[in-house]
Amino acid sequence: MPLSPQQQAEVEALRAEARETRRVTVPALEDILYRPLKVLDHGFVRVVDYMGDDSAIVQAARVSYGRGTRKSREGRDLIRYLLRHRHTTPFEMCEIKLHVKLPIFVARQWLRHRTASVNEYSARYSRLDREFYVPDAAHLRSALKKRDSTLTLFEMETDAPKATAAQSDSNKQGRGALVDSEELGKALKRIDRLSRNAYGVYENLLNEDEAGERKEPEHTGVARELARTVLPVNYYTQFYWKSDLHNLLHFLSLRADAHAQYEIRAYAQTILDDIVGRWVPETAWAFRDYVRDAASLSSRGLEVVKRMIDGETVTREESGLSGREWRELMETLGREA
Amino acid sequence: MPLSPQQQAEVEALRAEARETRRVTVPALEDILYRPLKVLDHGFVRVVDYMGDDSAIVQAARVSYGRGTRKSREGRDLIRYLLRHRHTTPFEMCEIKLHVKLPIFVARQWLRHRTASVNEYSARYSRLDREFYVPDAAHLRSALKKRDSTLTLFEMETDAPKATAAQSDSNKQGRGALVDSEELGKALKRIDRLSRNAYGVYENLLNEDEAGERKEPEHTGVARELARTVLPVNYYTQFYWKSDLHNLLHFLSLRADAHAQYEIRAYAQTILDDIVGRWVPETAWAFRDYVRDAASLSSRGLEVVKRMIDGETVTREESGLSGREWRELMETLGREA
Amino acid sequence: MPLSPQQQAEVEALRAEARETRRVTVPALEDILYRPLKVLDHGFVRVVDYMGDDSAIVQAARVSYGRGTRKSREGRDLIRYLLRHRHTTPFEMCEIKLHVKLPIFVARQWLRHRTASVNEYSARYSRLDREFYVPDAAHLRSALKKRDSTLTLFEMETDAPKATAAQSDSNKQGRGALVDSEELGKALKRIDRLSRNAYGVYENLLNEDEAGERKEPEHTGVARELARTVLPVNYYTQFYWKSDLHNLLHFLSLRADAHAQYEIRAYAQTILDDIVGRWVPETAWAFRDYVRDAASLSSRGLEVVKRMIDGETVTREESGLSGREWRELMETLGREA
Amino acid sequence: MPLSPQQQAEVEALRAEARETRRVTVPALEDILYRPLKVLDHGFVRVVDYMGDDSAIVQAARVSYGRGTRKSREGRDLIRYLLRHRHTTPFEMCEIKLHVKLPIFVARQWLRHRTASVNEYSARYSRLDREFYVPDAAHLRSALKKRDSTLTLFEMETDAPKATAAQSDSNKQGRGALVDSEELGKALKRIDRLSRNAYGVYENLLNEDEAGERKEPEHTGVARELARTVLPVNYYTQFYWKSDLHNLLHFLSLRADAHAQYEIRAYAQTILDDIVGRWVPETAWAFRDYVRDAASLSSRGLEVVKRMIDGETVTREESGLSGREWRELMETLGREA
Repeated sequence: MPLSPQQQAEVEALRAEARETRRVTVPALEDILYRPLKVLDHGFVRVVDYMGDDSAIVQAARVSYGRGTRKSREGRDLIRYLLRHRHTTPFEMCEIKLHVKLPIFVARQWLRHRTASVNEYSARYSRLDREFYVPDAAHLRSALKKRDSTLTLFEMETDAPKATAAQSDSNKQGRGALVDSEELGKALKRIDRLSRNAYGVYENLLNEDEAGERKEPEHTGVARELARTVLPVNYYTQFYWKSDLHNLLHFLSLRADAHAQYEIRAYAQTILDDIVGRWVPETAWAFRDYVRDAASLSSRGLEVVKRMIDGETVTREESGLSGREWRELMETLGREA
Repeated sequence: MPLSPQQQAEVEALRAEARETRRVTVPALEDILYRPLKVLDHGFVRVVDYMGDDSAIVQAARVSYGRGTRKSREGRDLIRYLLRHRHTTPFEMCEIKLHVKLPIFVARQWLRHRTASVNEYSARYSRLDREFYVPDAAHLRSALKKRDSTLTLFEMETDAPKATAAQSDSNKQGRGALVDSEELGKALKRIDRLSRNAYGVYENLLNEDEAGERKEPEHTGVARELARTVLPVNYYTQFYWKSDLHNLLHFLSLRADAHAQYEIRAYAQTILDDIVGRWVPETAWAFRDYVRDAASLSSRGLEVVKRMIDGETVTREESGLSGREWRELMETLGREA
Repeated sequence: MPLSPQQQAEVEALRAEARETRRVTVPALEDILYRPLKVLDHGFVRVVDYMGDDSAIVQAARVSYGRGTRKSREGRDLIRYLLRHRHTTPFEMCEIKLHVKLPIFVARQWLRHRTASVNEYSARYSRLDREFYVPDAAHLRSALKKRDSTLTLFEMETDAPKATAAQSDSNKQGRGALVDSEELGKALKRIDRLSRNAYGVYENLLNEDEAGERKEPEHTGVARELARTVLPVNYYTQFYWKSDLHNLLHFLSLRADAHAQYEIRAYAQTILDDIVGRWVPETAWAFRDYVRDAASLSSRGLEVVKRMIDGETVTREESGLSGREWRELMETLGREA
Repeated sequence: MPLSPQQQAEVEALRAEARETRRVTVPALEDILYRPLKVLDHGFVRVVDYMGDDSAIVQAARVSYGRGTRKSREGRDLIRYLLRHRHTTPFEMCEIKLHVKLPIFVARQWLRHRTASVNEYSARYSRLDREFYVPDAAHLRSALKKRDSTLTLFEMETDAPKATAAQSDSNKQGRGALVDSEELGKALKRIDRLSRNAYGVYENLLNEDEAGERKEPEHTGVARELARTVLPVNYYTQFYWKSDLHNLLHFLSLRADAHAQYEIRAYAQTILDDIVGRWVPETAWAFRDYVRDAASLSSRGLEVVKRMIDGETVTREESGLSGREWRELMETLGREA
């Protein structure tokens, strides 16, 4: 369970209080306010505060004195128009504040996004909990890598199969189920054992037992800021993260994408489906249509499409596209490369 | 009056609706929500939305599960500590959205601050109102400049009186009241007449009368995006502006300062006194004590102070300070230079 | 001529000095360093400094110790891959510093882009020159607007012709050539006369003649910061503007676009063609292919395209697209709507 | 040695090439260009590129056509004035690009600064080296913590000794030299052993030996993106980091400060002393005087100082300051609390 009983009680105490406000409210989001949405084995996301709704976007686009609009169809059409044409500033008028608990290596990817506000739990001043991430067998298996995949990011480009190819279907043939299961089991045990050992060393360095009592009374222990350096990046941390809707959507477009690492994708998917969908349903819908599921065609890719519509048979050679680009285009169009 | 009767009605309609929320609320700020606070002759600031309060800062500093703290003294002390030691990220956890109407030349200064979100009324697509700023006599007088003040910003530095010196006491002797009044009257008339003429040209270019009717039926008129280029920078524009509290305080520290131009200072003062004071009273109090009214001493300035406390008489020559720095230090200490 | 003889001499003096450096250099960009590229009637853009080249992007993508790569084809492929897949951070590793002279209304659009560094000439401290923008007849004509175009941004969306439609072909029928010429001539004269008058008022308020001499010896004049408020937004200002390549390309994607106002587009086009093309030719090429001339298809638009390739006849009704979206899609595909 | 022989050769190859440029150059910085400056046990900082110098700041402050100024005293005075009065935008006109190798826990603190551009080595795609940070005995000793220091950040405020107090002199009495040495030795061994073990597990998960050969031929190994999750945060990573001078100085004001953790301070100190001092010597000098070694007095603290200069004896009680603030003020003034 992601929260301790005491934390759970604090959350429910907050939820029990109702106040009056003249501000815009979103009942569907209030329904889940403060409550943790579980992600991975010990992580969560919970909404702590929010500002604005779909109508605030409309209001900003028109710089009006009243609410955005009364007629919902007009609002929807405008939101779709704004997102389609990349008029992004009105989406900055909505803001959301999340509390996220996540492994350090996920936090490292997350905080590359520089446009949000962050307050992270400090391992300099506070003791970390014994909580670390172990992938479940299914995800570990799907991420098993082909041994000779020594491709660098750069080599990826020159039409070779890409670095993450090891995780793709084409590489699965090489592994028998039996072998996998044996290797999987070992891998999971290794991750678990090393992580536990690390916490033991952490406690020894702090000279503290689980209850916070001194283990060796005659010793002082090492400062938290140094003791924590032995903990692996699969240990959990947590932060408050506050972002406007435009930058949140940009984050989601990169992190809810199939190319993102599974673990951060799990957080992004929860935010998109369970939070954004409740908060700004019109925007969430337009986002899926115009951003997440949209396709981009290069000028030469567009020429190929025009010729194909005219009934021509186009080959890669005459298209002017590289092998990689050609494959990407055919994949977009749902055709054999 | 800054709002038209219709706009006023829209504002009151919004204020009349009360909704339930589980979020933090600030009743003192709700009291003025949506209502314009008058600034200058035709301008205003009004709060359109907000997120968080003083307790949200405390909560972020501790990354807690519940509210910041129940005991107000502890919260106050922590807020003061954070602000004093420039731990600024917790202040980013509060957000406010303003609707501001202001002269273009003030908007130009305002939007130099790049950390906020903005949606401005578009003079490309919409017609501007016939509203322009004319300083009142008192402010025009206090900004009357000494004729031979050809100082550049750079020359300001080399211990000469500064460029804005014309507006300082030392220059007032040169002007008799009579002269001033005559010149003042002329200046005000010139500003008013030119501004009106500009609007006439604007309407002629648009080929529209006040009611939006075509003036010369056989002509089409010039596009709005070009017609507006004849309007002076004292014309009013408006925008929605959304900022977190940390960046708002930074804005106020520069724009509520005596060195800021009077017109933007008038807006900053209203925001500080009538909005921030209601919204986050503990923070507003700490801001005045540790930022607005605080003094910074250079390492050499500090040496001078230490010696003075020890009863020594220190002269500028032995202080190692430039003439300008010495004067600034003595002014800080409330002593004759 | 955009520069005075003295400024021209300063520029040539800078150009005459050659220094040794171990940094990456771009000879094609050095060729135009410091020299103003003329834009509009009195404006310019000139490159004052730069950092990095195409190879710096490659280097950053691989975090290598040496230069990006020796083999230019590999570098090109990687740059194309990065831009196509929106891996934008390596493009932040190149930086350019421009000196721009431009009308105030263009500067206002320009500075909406918040990710660059700016130092603007201060009309609070310095006197502005008598230089203002008057559109040439061709651009004023193409921007002549249809009288009853009272569309708001919002109404644009609901499948009505868009607000800038006044500038489109469909509206030209209403105007006879003769009428236009008469109206054009009047419009140009009105803009010119108002702008000149404004400068006269500015000088009267300052109580300064062209040579900076006091006009009325017994008066002091108004402070610069207030006198300048009567100048229209077609007056020229200037700033230093420093941006990384990623944010510059984002600026260009919006401002070199056909929907941008002509005047800012003129600057963007000069930067793209005459500066970026010299500085980072591989990136400029990839930018045109994958961003400027690329097309975005929504998920439903993509379905339509797939069906058309399969030889189906698709109608708007069954496409699920709005009328506006359908027209946009057909335009993209170069077909009748 | 921080670089391998091959990397060293690449660096020297780059250094051997001299090119001509019309841009501003800084010979003192060119002297160390590309060369690693060693920090901690395996880390480094090296300058990879730069733009501008002290004169670029002056030029931006004046928006001039030529170089900033010829007379160095005027430039110095202006730089000091700008820094003293927090006119920060001209300092954004200089840019520097560093290549940094550092432990992950230091990188995590570093990247909280959101205003720079970063490209980090990717452990998703590339294998990490077996390099981890072990503090030397002196720093581990000085960071030994008092056992019962369970203070939270919040409790720090209410006039209790602060959380990091464990590292301060007052706590040293409790530890005999002998005890320390024994505990130190154990702590160092524990950190080293756990870190080595973790790398062993990493290689086992990857199923790769040191040479990159498959350890168990019949198994495929786990994907890099998951295998790396067992590595502790003391492992080294590296990134390119590009920042303007203003934001670099802000970074240094926080990270070269005595309250920063030793490890990041070591990097900040190297940047300030060995890089900024060479690059923009006037600015570095002003920064030390007006920022790093400056003192800030609250409005009430200033009142106390004024009274002390007047010869009054002021007590904490009548000062209105909290106990903590009083101690901070007395420390600033170099007096007994």
